[in-house]
Amino acid sequence: MLAPQRVPMPGLPSAVTIWEVGARDGLQNEPAVVPLDVKLEFLERLAAAGLTVVEATSFVHPKWVPQLADADELISRLRQAPGVRYPVLVPNDRGLDRALALGVREIAIFGSATETFAMRNLNTTVDGSLAMFEPVVRRALSSGLRVRGYLSMCFGDPWEGEVPVPQVVSVARRLLDLGCDQLSLGDTIGVGTPGHVTALITALGSAGVPADRLAVHFHDTYGQALANTLAALQAGVTTVDSSAGGLGGCPYAKSATGNLATEDLVWQLNGLGIETGVDLAALVRTSLWMADHLGRPSPSAVVRALAADL
Amino acid sequence: MLAPQRVPMPGLPSAVTIWEVGARDGLQNEPAVVPLDVKLEFLERLAAAGLTVVEATSFVHPKWVPQLADADELISRLRQAPGVRYPVLVPNDRGLDRALALGVREIAIFGSATETFAMRNLNTTVDGSLAMFEPVVRRALSSGLRVRGYLSMCFGDPWEGEVPVPQVVSVARRLLDLGCDQLSLGDTIGVGTPGHVTALITALGSAGVPADRLAVHFHDTYGQALANTLAALQAGVTTVDSSAGGLGGCPYAKSATGNLATEDLVWQLNGLGIETGVDLAALVRTSLWMADHLGRPSPSAVVRALAADL
Repeated sequence: MLAPQRVPMPGLPSAVTIWEVGARDGLQNEPAVVPLDVKLEFLERLAAAGLTVVEATSFVHPKWVPQLADADELISRLRQAPGVRYPVLVPNDRGLDRALALGVREIAIFGSATETFAMRNLNTTVDGSLAMFEPVVRRALSSGLRVRGYLSMCFGDPWEGEVPVPQVVSVARRLLDLGCDQLSLGDTIGVGTPGHVTALITALGSAGVPADRLAVHFHDTYGQALANTLAALQAGVTTVDSSAGGLGGCPYAKSATGNLATEDLVWQLNGLGIETGVDLAALVRTSLWMADHLGRPSPSAVVRALAADL
Repeated sequence: MLAPQRVPMPGLPSAVTIWEVGARDGLQNEPAVVPLDVKLEFLERLAAAGLTVVEATSFVHPKWVPQLADADELISRLRQAPGVRYPVLVPNDRGLDRALALGVREIAIFGSATETFAMRNLNTTVDGSLAMFEPVVRRALSSGLRVRGYLSMCFGDPWEGEVPVPQVVSVARRLLDLGCDQLSLGDTIGVGTPGHVTALITALGSAGVPADRLAVHFHDTYGQALANTLAALQAGVTTVDSSAGGLGGCPYAKSATGNLATEDLVWQLNGLGIETGVDLAALVRTSLWMADHLGRPSPSAVVRALAADL
């Protein structure tokens, strides 16, 4: 199997934490509903491939995300690998109740940088969503949980168009001030480019948010995710979200909104000599296996290119 | 149609020349043979979309590249747009004869950084290939032509594996010393990553080759082409090769070796505020039209994502 030559680039971190979102953000956006046993095996294989943060599921109402309706049973049956974190998405108080009842140690909330997406996704304003999250985060923290904040539409919004950097910085600050220990900057529609990434991270730094409290969450809709990742690494970010096999958006559909594929990210980081702990061959095998279950090829370039060698 | 927010990145050039290779490197690697009239319309549409360097064809023997067997008729019938350059690939003396007879103003030769690929592609050693190119370049220059040198396998070789940077620098210097005014560094199998790009361009600079004599030619086999492009721009390169619609490698084949898609590149450069002169919508329409002729969807992320809007 081919591999990139290892040539570090000056100024980049020596290690990166990959925040694997395939089982949550990936599967929730796939048309097929994956059986619970397959999900459990998927989570086990991701951990076995060396991923140390594996977002497991979402405690959203099954009416909105039927793909993850088995969240409670999944968490109770999951055999957690030692040293691996399994955060879950929690949209509200009821979701937190479910997470706490199951002994979850880490949650994530999901905010929006734009009013339109807040209304469409959360059925409230940006202010309203922050007011809704506030007691959730407070109760989670008082129960000893870690809380991550997702911030979507940071680089553009399909209804509003351009999203000003100061607007993103403002919502980001407020999410962090709730008590989130990390903020994941989402390019939900994949329109961002590297200068925009640099500008946002720089502006957050000027507003008192250091890069080590940030993660980036890029979509490959316009092929920009890895170049944007490089810009983020250059700006000091060391946590990158990605989805095994690019789960979460069929590349052949009209509006492909696929997550950055973990394999494509690992290829880049391997070439840069940046430590991830991931066994790329094991991960590609896992994504090929999942693609079989979903009945379609993986959109990941690395998965496709390496498939024949494994 | 969505567009990236325009946010320049410090240290990048204000303009980039896109060297469009779809009609030559693209079509020569497509299984289907495209009719001459379609090729002529393709070249006209590429120029009309604002591309200023459009590699037109190759004067290689038709036995080796039947897809381009119509090279002479194509050049003689081509209606050249004012201000647009139409270089052609010329493998040897016989090819140069054909180019000169047709009044071609600009040629490219195609070398290899590795012995194995030189033997497989040119049926000679690296030394042998340079000896073969020497009289071709001399005669072209004495006829007032511009000569570009392609250098393949700069970032890895499928048979030899890793390709040491000093080896690439050595062959690169020798190609330039023949009289090439520009050298295009090819990641022929797409394995390169950004640190490797930086290292090679830096090493070439130390060997007396400034970045303004370089171009980069990346393949998206492992999804790395745009991140590598960003690294090249940061290192001072201002000419980037790409292929409209990603022509030149079917993404569904076992060994997809697709060129970087011009549309994906233009999206990135538009976002970075880097001038290219390209009308993205016109280019996407051209690639959709060509995909119809080829009977398969374009592998370009931007073409796929924008197709529904046009």
